[in-house]
Amino acid sequence: MSVAAKFREAGRKIICVGRNYGAHAAELGNPVPEKPILFFKPTSSYLSEGSPIQIPKGCSSLHHEVELGIIIERTGKNISESSALDHVGGYILALDMTARDFQDEAKKKGQPWAMAKGFDTSCPVSGFIPREKVQDPQNVNLWCKVNGQTKQDGNTKDMIFSIPNLISYISQYFTLEAGDVILTGTPSGVSATKPGDTIQCGLADVVSMQFDVKQG
Amino acid sequence: MSVAAKFREAGRKIICVGRNYGAHAAELGNPVPEKPILFFKPTSSYLSEGSPIQIPKGCSSLHHEVELGIIIERTGKNISESSALDHVGGYILALDMTARDFQDEAKKKGQPWAMAKGFDTSCPVSGFIPREKVQDPQNVNLWCKVNGQTKQDGNTKDMIFSIPNLISYISQYFTLEAGDVILTGTPSGVSATKPGDTIQCGLADVVSMQFDVKQG
Ligand SMILES: [Mg+2]
Ligand SMILES: [Mg+2]
Ligand SMILES: [Mg+2]
Repeated sequence: MSVAAKFREAGRKIICVGRNYGAHAAELGNPVPEKPILFFKPTSSYLSEGSPIQIPKGCSSLHHEVELGIIIERTGKNISESSALDHVGGYILALDMTARDFQDEAKKKGQPWAMAKGFDTSCPVSGFIPREKVQDPQNVNLWCKVNGQTKQDGNTKDMIFSIPNLISYISQYFTLEAGDVILTGTPSGVSATKPGDTIQCGLADVVSMQFDVKQG
Repeated sequence: MSVAAKFREAGRKIICVGRNYGAHAAELGNPVPEKPILFFKPTSSYLSEGSPIQIPKGCSSLHHEVELGIIIERTGKNISESSALDHVGGYILALDMTARDFQDEAKKKGQPWAMAKGFDTSCPVSGFIPREKVQDPQNVNLWCKVNGQTKQDGNTKDMIFSIPNLISYISQYFTLEAGDVILTGTPSGVSATKPGDTIQCGLADVVSMQFDVKQG
């Protein structure tokens, strides 16, 4: 089995991209960024189907953000855009669960986003998706429903910074290691969830997944 | 060998505490926090003696922050303050190298700190220090010199949030896993370094280390 296929056990970082879809930046009242906005989730935030998303203590606005995840198979630094896809071992569907109230407070105070983005269960993921299953990662549908109602329905072609662009930029600052994951940002339609809700999401007809939300 | 002793290879996250010494909060013009301010470095930022600290591209103000690091040996969640030290497997001396200009821009824009804190070589560390070598981790001297001139000279007794308090608080949100590291904040005296500088730092008479700074 490739290292990418074992990303949950082998990977050591999750690098996430904020505001990588113009319509999502706009819906939160944020300007479109001039360079990628990066933050981390720890690998302890991974969650697989069958276990619930847990709202962290003190959070009253937990948002879903459905995203395409890129799994690194080949370690690299200062990767060129033209060779970026050679470093990719596969994909995942992911939810970047966000304590929006924690994030709003952090943004106001100029503080880091770790509490808003990295708590346990904040990164629900699908199983490993081999490269061959996603013909064009830059043109694939991403959707998310809460209690059966469609909230997000986007396409990765609307990313501001493309996948090769992200891999190249990130690797100028952070060595990308086998098993690392990049979450590439969310399309518009994010919304707050509450205990008892069920979140379903999918990547085209490749994979779908479902998680219950409970109070942590 | 314990997992803690292999933290560089086995660990999967580095959780850092900002403004945990009153005099340091004041020197950067920040208020004393009411709860711990947390952020992450990825494990790809570890650096050992013999290799240089590299100033990331575009950074013009790279600051040294000497810190006591706590290594987790026993995995836990919702750890009580009274049992917190049972989860500690040892210590490290660390430098939380900070691209202060990147951080200032992030603070102003309400953006995350990943670029300011997590770039490659941003976490120079000593070797593993067994628990027995540090009689009282809450009363130990921390110092840092640049080119032989003393810049930081503090003591862990001046932490705002104590080590048990930090472990307990952090573990309410993030499961602490064997090999994870907590950087506990820096005393006052941080300053900018430039290519060609040599940074020396130490933890009482337990350990000292030295790193050259070069342009990355
Ligand atoms: Mg997101
Ligand atoms: Mg952060
Ligand atoms: Mg620090």
